[in-house]
Amino acid sequence: MKIDQKYYRTIQPSTEPIVGADQAKNETGFSVEIIDQTLLPHRFETRKIQNLDEMISAIKTMQVRGAPLIGAAAAYGMALATQQNPSDDFLHHAATKLIQSRPTAVNLSWAVTRMLQRLSALPTEARHQAAWQEAALICDEDVAINQAIGQHGFHLIQAVAAKKTHGPINILTHCNAGWLATVDWGTALAPIYTAHDAGLNIHVWVDETRPRNQGASLTAWELGKHGVPHTIISDNTGGHLMQHGQVDLVIVGADRVTSTGDVCNKIGTYLKALAAFDNQIPFYAAVPSPTIDWTIKNGLTDIEIEMRDGDEVHYMTGLNNKGNLQTVRVTPAHSVAINPAFDVTPAKLVTGIITERGVASPQELSLLFK
Amino acid sequence: MKIDQKYYRTIQPSTEPIVGADQAKNETGFSVEIIDQTLLPHRFETRKIQNLDEMISAIKTMQVRGAPLIGAAAAYGMALATQQNPSDDFLHHAATKLIQSRPTAVNLSWAVTRMLQRLSALPTEARHQAAWQEAALICDEDVAINQAIGQHGFHLIQAVAAKKTHGPINILTHCNAGWLATVDWGTALAPIYTAHDAGLNIHVWVDETRPRNQGASLTAWELGKHGVPHTIISDNTGGHLMQHGQVDLVIVGADRVTSTGDVCNKIGTYLKALAAFDNQIPFYAAVPSPTIDWTIKNGLTDIEIEMRDGDEVHYMTGLNNKGNLQTVRVTPAHSVAINPAFDVTPAKLVTGIITERGVASPQELSLLFK
Repeated sequence: MKIDQKYYRTIQPSTEPIVGADQAKNETGFSVEIIDQTLLPHRFETRKIQNLDEMISAIKTMQVRGAPLIGAAAAYGMALATQQNPSDDFLHHAATKLIQSRPTAVNLSWAVTRMLQRLSALPTEARHQAAWQEAALICDEDVAINQAIGQHGFHLIQAVAAKKTHGPINILTHCNAGWLATVDWGTALAPIYTAHDAGLNIHVWVDETRPRNQGASLTAWELGKHGVPHTIISDNTGGHLMQHGQVDLVIVGADRVTSTGDVCNKIGTYLKALAAFDNQIPFYAAVPSPTIDWTIKNGLTDIEIEMRDGDEVHYMTGLNNKGNLQTVRVTPAHSVAINPAFDVTPAKLVTGIITERGVASPQELSLLFK
Repeated sequence: MKIDQKYYRTIQPSTEPIVGADQAKNETGFSVEIIDQTLLPHRFETRKIQNLDEMISAIKTMQVRGAPLIGAAAAYGMALATQQNPSDDFLHHAATKLIQSRPTAVNLSWAVTRMLQRLSALPTEARHQAAWQEAALICDEDVAINQAIGQHGFHLIQAVAAKKTHGPINILTHCNAGWLATVDWGTALAPIYTAHDAGLNIHVWVDETRPRNQGASLTAWELGKHGVPHTIISDNTGGHLMQHGQVDLVIVGADRVTSTGDVCNKIGTYLKALAAFDNQIPFYAAVPSPTIDWTIKNGLTDIEIEMRDGDEVHYMTGLNNKGNLQTVRVTPAHSVAINPAFDVTPAKLVTGIITERGVASPQELSLLFK
């Protein structure tokens, strides 16, 4: 998507040779360019990642985040490893270290395993070139999936638009399931970008999404940079807007969806789904198929919810009046906070799941993949 | 309630003479002590308010806030005015200025009007003493109402406790309807303090209540100072806790209740009521009778919702690592935010209204006041 008129992906191989690559010996030495997302929305900076350890560090410190993007970053981590040492031993070592860099994202181990299988089948001297090709392919596949989600979701938005006589189509989203969380397009935001680029009059209500504030800091930033009209609201506000006819559609992402259509997503999604249901507003989750876990049926009992550090509730980081990033404590010194990161929206509240194969009700999700 | 073992009210006449009162001439000169709530939860400081203008400023800058406390503060503002000049002209001037100091609180004009009527009926020389008596009476009445709400709510909590075999009684609350918002006891927190003081094992889930964070900064602070176990959660978290059986009861305050039992309260209350209903958890609003507006029936159409400044969403204030209060911007520079301050929970989601006269379902609320 665009940042101030220029198209970007969240991750891309850099054509500049890395420091130390010996051009005379025809050594190839690519680096990988990422956006340092820890500085958003206040500063936009890219980083050149030159070796395996730097990529592991970028994943650990959440300079790259979002399950699909973490997968792509890990694939490029393997590619960087091949130009350090393409031996079986080193690539297995690299794979193990990459998989350990974040605890939960299923895309991470999926991408690393795929890279390792592809490379292990090749002679050592062919691995470097193949690794960069495979990583690029993983990225392109992610983009294609998200574009397809965008197209299917676009048709839903068109249907809402056809019924509206005036004003923008108001779509509420929670957290960040935008292009910053993927290689490009995003999941929940892909239909929104597609509709906006097609000329529909779209306005997005952005839940700030405490405690990490990914809505206010990432979703609002990327929508603004691409030129999509949007308004930030506190997480408390969506229900009120729905009661007053100011939300036409809710689209969220998901971290995991059960075979029965229960949607595990950022904490607070369930509350918005309840309000959408109470006000007869369609509620969709946009989900690439690898996010569907066909092995589980009951999201409430079968998905373990990550408990994150209470300090994410106690502290907030922002820009002070001197333009520097500063962290402040917003709670009393001795109070305890807990911080479950996700909740589960039962299928009964979900109008439909938007996948790259099409849109289905929770009950008919499996039919899309027959 | 207690602050570190010492009992306080949020507002009380000070026995120390104010600067400039001439003891030799037997001039009375009381001041009024308030807690500067803008510094909470990071600093506890009291202020001596010595004249009308200082009280108006304390109300405007929200050093005192919460409808019942604003009423009490305005009453003492009138008392301070009498010791400056007890003439009809000056007291009318004082009343007008006090009523203009905050736009919405019904208690403010109610208390000022009551003071003015009481004082206008008296000869000038009797007004000073009567004013201090009447202001103290208004405070004592507020305390009595809240104690009664506490008793009625306590019986509800006892009933929940009787059914529980182990663990604390978990009560979720939103925003601050505690003693800091009243003269003492609070409304929603009065049953909680009563139950805690009676020895019940109470634990409170405190919604942080963005954007102004009154839950994290005021409710958590006052519960902690009185010794009530509590945990701060983001506003997104309550639904998840309810799904997992970790909430036994919800008690909130209200800014206005319709004759039909629709509850207008801090933005986000509606979302918690939906989740409570979905999980069959009792949802109560604790409401002193002056908060009930018998003239309106439909909370959604008949209550105008205050739109506050979007900057309350853009900025957060907290303690930096040097121990100083600092404000930081948490959203992108060019994004817009809106900030409706209240929402309306329809009566269908409300289990009961706790008043000083007893507890009633929304449908039977008027029977309490026959």
